[in-house]
Amino acid sequence: MNHKTNIKKKSQSNKSQALNPDSKVVFFKEAHPLKLDSGVILSPFQIAYQDYGKLNDDKSNAILICHALTADQHVANCHPLTGKPGWWDILVGPDKIIDTNRYYVICSNVLGGCLGSTGPVSLNPETGKPYALNFPVITIADMVRAQAMLIEHLGIESLFCVIGGSMGGMQALQWASSYKDKVFSSIILATGARHSAQNIAFDEIGRQAVMADPDWCGGNYIEAKKRPKKGLAVARMTAHVTYLSEAALHRKFGRNLQNRDQITFGFDADFQIESYLRHQGTTFVERFDANSYLYLTRAMDYFDLEAENNGRLVEAFYGSRTRFFVASFSSDWMFTTEQSRIFVHALNAAGASVSFVEIETDKGHDAFLLEDPVMFSAIQGFLHSAAQERDLRP
Amino acid sequence: MNHKTNIKKKSQSNKSQALNPDSKVVFFKEAHPLKLDSGVILSPFQIAYQDYGKLNDDKSNAILICHALTADQHVANCHPLTGKPGWWDILVGPDKIIDTNRYYVICSNVLGGCLGSTGPVSLNPETGKPYALNFPVITIADMVRAQAMLIEHLGIESLFCVIGGSMGGMQALQWASSYKDKVFSSIILATGARHSAQNIAFDEIGRQAVMADPDWCGGNYIEAKKRPKKGLAVARMTAHVTYLSEAALHRKFGRNLQNRDQITFGFDADFQIESYLRHQGTTFVERFDANSYLYLTRAMDYFDLEAENNGRLVEAFYGSRTRFFVASFSSDWMFTTEQSRIFVHALNAAGASVSFVEIETDKGHDAFLLEDPVMFSAIQGFLHSAAQERDLRP
Repeated sequence: MNHKTNIKKKSQSNKSQALNPDSKVVFFKEAHPLKLDSGVILSPFQIAYQDYGKLNDDKSNAILICHALTADQHVANCHPLTGKPGWWDILVGPDKIIDTNRYYVICSNVLGGCLGSTGPVSLNPETGKPYALNFPVITIADMVRAQAMLIEHLGIESLFCVIGGSMGGMQALQWASSYKDKVFSSIILATGARHSAQNIAFDEIGRQAVMADPDWCGGNYIEAKKRPKKGLAVARMTAHVTYLSEAALHRKFGRNLQNRDQITFGFDADFQIESYLRHQGTTFVERFDANSYLYLTRAMDYFDLEAENNGRLVEAFYGSRTRFFVASFSSDWMFTTEQSRIFVHALNAAGASVSFVEIETDKGHDAFLLEDPVMFSAIQGFLHSAAQERDLRP
Repeated sequence: MNHKTNIKKKSQSNKSQALNPDSKVVFFKEAHPLKLDSGVILSPFQIAYQDYGKLNDDKSNAILICHALTADQHVANCHPLTGKPGWWDILVGPDKIIDTNRYYVICSNVLGGCLGSTGPVSLNPETGKPYALNFPVITIADMVRAQAMLIEHLGIESLFCVIGGSMGGMQALQWASSYKDKVFSSIILATGARHSAQNIAFDEIGRQAVMADPDWCGGNYIEAKKRPKKGLAVARMTAHVTYLSEAALHRKFGRNLQNRDQITFGFDADFQIESYLRHQGTTFVERFDANSYLYLTRAMDYFDLEAENNGRLVEAFYGSRTRFFVASFSSDWMFTTEQSRIFVHALNAAGASVSFVEIETDKGHDAFLLEDPVMFSAIQGFLHSAAQERDLRP
């Protein structure tokens, strides 16, 4: 292999509270270009990733976790920017359900992201300046192509499992379709085989909010030494409401007032829901790049596994021998159970092995990120059974 | 009466296509102050209104229509700014269901609005400059108080009917609670007795979008000769998605592309839903004031008829002799059927006469503004029966 691997950290602690070093980075030079769906050739490029646990001798215990829109590779370690535990720390780690004593777990920052993988914030080698809007528009399939190159670089021929929720679930579906022989099992949560009109609408609102901010500077805010914080915060607030259910908002906040007995007849945050959303907006902009937000939402908009397969979703899965576990969440109105059923039906029609459950919860789309006994035990059981089938030693 | 009435138009045509003159305006001088819920005394102030049809001799045929957040008094005449038919032209007019040959129909621009009634865009008599954020924060009850002064000014002791949907429905509920003897019947559509956490969340997103626009100028954009067009457009786009159902978005737009066969791998409006939303945003800013948008959404946030009645909604309606017709719309996720049921139960508990229907539709919250045979015939039947009870001649 002639890829240059910058292993910036020598050892990886599995403790979520450990100080997080920089991620590992694989640099793909000109000899290994990435051909994008748009026709553009992206080269060179790099992928940053975290890994946990140890690859076994026959390289059969690797799990790839695909992250969602605003998450990143820091799935089970202390986040280097926020200092918070990894986004799936409750599920991934030693002796946890995705047991890093048993499995070798990889999570890479998606192509187009802003935490080490090549994206609009990266330097364009042709200009020496950040790509900004000169970065090519990418798709979910492009993200998966880059991940497949990383997996090949790591010498893994077949992943034991590909797991993802939301945009991560789109990637998991794409893996199952594009790399049938490389995916032994797949866990697909809270997603759909294509983005709905309502989801595109909310994505577009977020993009317009970013672009309306004069500090966005036509995308060139890094060069201008500015950041479209207000626009990106509005985008985040909007998206965040779609991640929660009406019931969860009612339970968590209702019409409760913020540290006050009475309304103030003003535009300060009177209601707790207002200060919560403002907090979501302001903390998000400290850890996420505005142009990445544009590119990743666009990739979700464009995702349409049915259109990619001549209008017949079943064709995406013909010949699949992957074992699938699919879960939707009853109060998720961003990716409804109906949207899961559509690709589950296609999987069934393609003769794939699928276990599907709708999990009762009032926590909305975000439920897949949270502790849920039904989801946890279902994932545990599914992985256990798949490990037995693959003859993985406990 | 010592109010000065500026009747700027001599005659009112009922034809929706007729050129619309300025609205009638009633000016309430210092002798008739408006005491607001905040404790502020607003004086002087004015209310602009449109009327249709003729008040009968015993002044028993007056219908007050309360408009929704971004509508105005131009309910059944050509809109002076957009040139479009009135927002309820399909329902209100000669020989229509709300028959202006039979009823005298009034619709006033709400207090805080931007089409002639006193609001943040009006000149503050103390400074000679637009009020902007010095305008007092108002409530739904304040809007209704101002309307009651208008109705009294017109010499009407008892309204035959008060009708409203969404924020108009909030006003209708407030009328039924605050002025029990002045409301013979009431038609309440697509609303709730208090704003939900999710509704407050979306309102807050809209306000933050406006305030994030540097052309908002801390509210003083009129003086600065600017307008926060981009921020207000994002606010409108966000709100507009909440007015439609997922099913309606899917039916109308789905993933259809805009005048193109293929995606463009860019951030232009590839999907029809994107260009539709952008159009909604840009046309809205031509007819609506950004500060009014802040004030009116805040009034909706604050609306809580239960809290206003010591936490017992039934107390809002004790002693009511008003006849009520209430309708919710099955796919309305902004004001759900459950929210209607809450105040219908309170009306029942208070011994009021209520007819309630959930109308099956996939058109979402906006359904109350659209042609719907079930809603139309229900309103027609209800008005007909109420007219008979009031002994109104056909």
